[in-house]
Amino acid sequence: MPLDALKSAVLEANLDTVRHGLVKATFGNASGIDRETGRIVIKPSGVPYPEMTPQYMVLTDLDGAALDNRFRPSSDLDTHVALYRAFPQIGGIVHTHSTYATIMAQARRPIPPLGTTHADYFRGTIPVTRDLTAEEITTRYVAATGSVIAETVGDRDPLAIPAVLVAGHGPFVWGRDPAEAVMNAMILEEVAKMAWHGAVLDRQPPAISDALLDRHFLRKHGANATYGQ
Amino acid sequence: MPLDALKSAVLEANLDTVRHGLVKATFGNASGIDRETGRIVIKPSGVPYPEMTPQYMVLTDLDGAALDNRFRPSSDLDTHVALYRAFPQIGGIVHTHSTYATIMAQARRPIPPLGTTHADYFRGTIPVTRDLTAEEITTRYVAATGSVIAETVGDRDPLAIPAVLVAGHGPFVWGRDPAEAVMNAMILEEVAKMAWHGAVLDRQPPAISDALLDRHFLRKHGANATYGQ
Amino acid sequence: MPLDALKSAVLEANLDTVRHGLVKATFGNASGIDRETGRIVIKPSGVPYPEMTPQYMVLTDLDGAALDNRFRPSSDLDTHVALYRAFPQIGGIVHTHSTYATIMAQARRPIPPLGTTHADYFRGTIPVTRDLTAEEITTRYVAATGSVIAETVGDRDPLAIPAVLVAGHGPFVWGRDPAEAVMNAMILEEVAKMAWHGAVLDRQPPAISDALLDRHFLRKHGANATYGQ
Amino acid sequence: MPLDALKSAVLEANLDTVRHGLVKATFGNASGIDRETGRIVIKPSGVPYPEMTPQYMVLTDLDGAALDNRFRPSSDLDTHVALYRAFPQIGGIVHTHSTYATIMAQARRPIPPLGTTHADYFRGTIPVTRDLTAEEITTRYVAATGSVIAETVGDRDPLAIPAVLVAGHGPFVWGRDPAEAVMNAMILEEVAKMAWHGAVLDRQPPAISDALLDRHFLRKHGANATYGQ
Repeated sequence: MPLDALKSAVLEANLDTVRHGLVKATFGNASGIDRETGRIVIKPSGVPYPEMTPQYMVLTDLDGAALDNRFRPSSDLDTHVALYRAFPQIGGIVHTHSTYATIMAQARRPIPPLGTTHADYFRGTIPVTRDLTAEEITTRYVAATGSVIAETVGDRDPLAIPAVLVAGHGPFVWGRDPAEAVMNAMILEEVAKMAWHGAVLDRQPPAISDALLDRHFLRKHGANATYGQ
Repeated sequence: MPLDALKSAVLEANLDTVRHGLVKATFGNASGIDRETGRIVIKPSGVPYPEMTPQYMVLTDLDGAALDNRFRPSSDLDTHVALYRAFPQIGGIVHTHSTYATIMAQARRPIPPLGTTHADYFRGTIPVTRDLTAEEITTRYVAATGSVIAETVGDRDPLAIPAVLVAGHGPFVWGRDPAEAVMNAMILEEVAKMAWHGAVLDRQPPAISDALLDRHFLRKHGANATYGQ
Repeated sequence: MPLDALKSAVLEANLDTVRHGLVKATFGNASGIDRETGRIVIKPSGVPYPEMTPQYMVLTDLDGAALDNRFRPSSDLDTHVALYRAFPQIGGIVHTHSTYATIMAQARRPIPPLGTTHADYFRGTIPVTRDLTAEEITTRYVAATGSVIAETVGDRDPLAIPAVLVAGHGPFVWGRDPAEAVMNAMILEEVAKMAWHGAVLDRQPPAISDALLDRHFLRKHGANATYGQ
Repeated sequence: MPLDALKSAVLEANLDTVRHGLVKATFGNASGIDRETGRIVIKPSGVPYPEMTPQYMVLTDLDGAALDNRFRPSSDLDTHVALYRAFPQIGGIVHTHSTYATIMAQARRPIPPLGTTHADYFRGTIPVTRDLTAEEITTRYVAATGSVIAETVGDRDPLAIPAVLVAGHGPFVWGRDPAEAVMNAMILEEVAKMAWHGAVLDRQPPAISDALLDRHFLRKHGANATYGQ
């Protein structure tokens, strides 16, 4: 993907997080990667959304080293770098503090598959990380956040459950490209909202069957997907 | 109804589900039927809402067989077909994953008539289907969803309670035409929202009396309706 | 007040209920009265809000008898008439099914003064009516709704607590003119929302003191009001 | 800061409270101070937001005495004066009745640091004042509201926890200037919303560690802040 196209895609992904109500103030950031060259494009730190143009997007290599020097990258860059290294299948990452996903992250509540809205995008329970240790927080906080997400995913396919809730923080979400990561972040917020409401109504809301989970997930994903034109 | 008018009505119904906040992403679909010719018009699968025009709407017969070949129909077509066959009184169907109706569908909670907002549009409790069996899910999922809805309605008048919550999925809603189906879907979301809030406050919120239920429903429906100009 | 001005004020009050999110579909209605001539102006029944102009507003006398014959009045006219007769101090009435006020009406929960937002507009608990009897519902439903509201207010000053929740139905709200009734309906929805959230958190949320209640209410109302320019 | 710039900043702060949904009707007010001259600029009382221009802003000295006579100041002026006197570090104050912050103020619930959204702006629990006594309410209500806030902050740094919930009333929030006060009020509403949802799910939701609290707060505040360009 040409660098200009990637910068535009990352800018659009960042703006879409605001348009969909997932990001307030300057919380949140989106990035994308060109796997051929190993170049990452990420939001700059603390720039108001209305002012951003593709030229504000920051370019780094796969170690997170800046390849241009105009703007400082998002303060969460090292988390993105860790995820791109851990998950070679992914091409875009979105981090938000969207309300209900964050409520569940703060409550350390995994989100089970309660319905087909969930199953259309996530093939199973969306997990919560363990808490970071004080040592991790003080010595290598941002990179450790990436490590603990990778540790939580373990050897599962990161594209089958493309989100993790970081305990006491909020969601990191990914996809094959930045636009898919935004879509997954939007669906995550909706299923988190429904999961919170379900948990208040019934302490143990019923999960859907594996048959229904697979039926919906595989309708939209994988070799036998039938959804769309 | 001329085919062009039906396509426009179905397009508007689909767009209205988005305008009223009942549908996010490409979840949801609306259809209509011309009973004289037995032709069904339904949303295409996976086309972004802003791009849709009447020409994108897909035409099928009452077996769900495509009558034109431009676009693939909504992946829920077979549910719509089953409902049009089971309920000859209805002329439009809307399926959404609207937030509160879906929360109640996931919790397997029927929605009792707690107030006159409900009674103006639904003459009694809005029911939830049983769960589909693994065999139904794996062999004939979409059509079985229609069958289980029809099984849930039983021999009641489908226009007296024009919605069913599909367990672990979301609402299917209908009406005499696509526009009425959308209106019923909007009211369903509102009464589901109020029912959730009522159930959190009181485990057994009080239903209104049959006298009040009938007074409101019959003011707007049937031979003795007095509402409107 | 000239009739044209009253019709415009009533139209604006009706449109404001939609703008403030208090009314969906065609639920809800607002009216005003000219006390000198005893003429009532009220919303027509079942006309979509975008189509309404002042000419659509319906004129009646204090018995609810139509003084013009173009449009049928709101189906709740007889409730408005009963309230104008019972409360000579009031000049405007608004009825909505606004979400949280309706949730509290369905739950038969009075709204105690939990904070100064409430105290600025309501000098005490907002009450809920008793349920109507089956006989009242079947023989004189709309007028009986007005009677039971008046019965609930009793000999209190209707302008000190300008709203009542009708059990299983929703709020009726009033003021010295239609615009004030809309403002009171908007504040009612907000205090109902906060009361619901308070009741979920604590079964018996603490009411504010009479000293604070009076301090706030009397800052905005009565002979010694100091608020505004 | 020139007086015209301060008036514009205070006007913008007031309008932003409405734009961000923190203020309904004419509830709420924002002010700013020029510390060199000791002049305070505050919203006028009871003027509709759409009509306000910089010329409507009211100028007072540090005793709250009017320095011009065109408009009456916000009825909460004496609270602002008390806070500017108690906290020399602050340059702007915002008062709102924003929904969730007010719900927590009514419930007398302090807001603990449940996540990093909170920690980015508040270095610890956001406290609730004691109730005012009847004597305070009847003799010096508005100034006493300021005193009880200062009493609640005690000898803590007011810029480390730039908000207090006034029991039975709502939040007062501040910052180094009016714009920062608005931002803090917006974040407060979001963390109050998440705290309410957390408390409903778990009676005692877990607070984040001091290490994480400091890591996030100090990334954005103080001599070693690294956030932004």
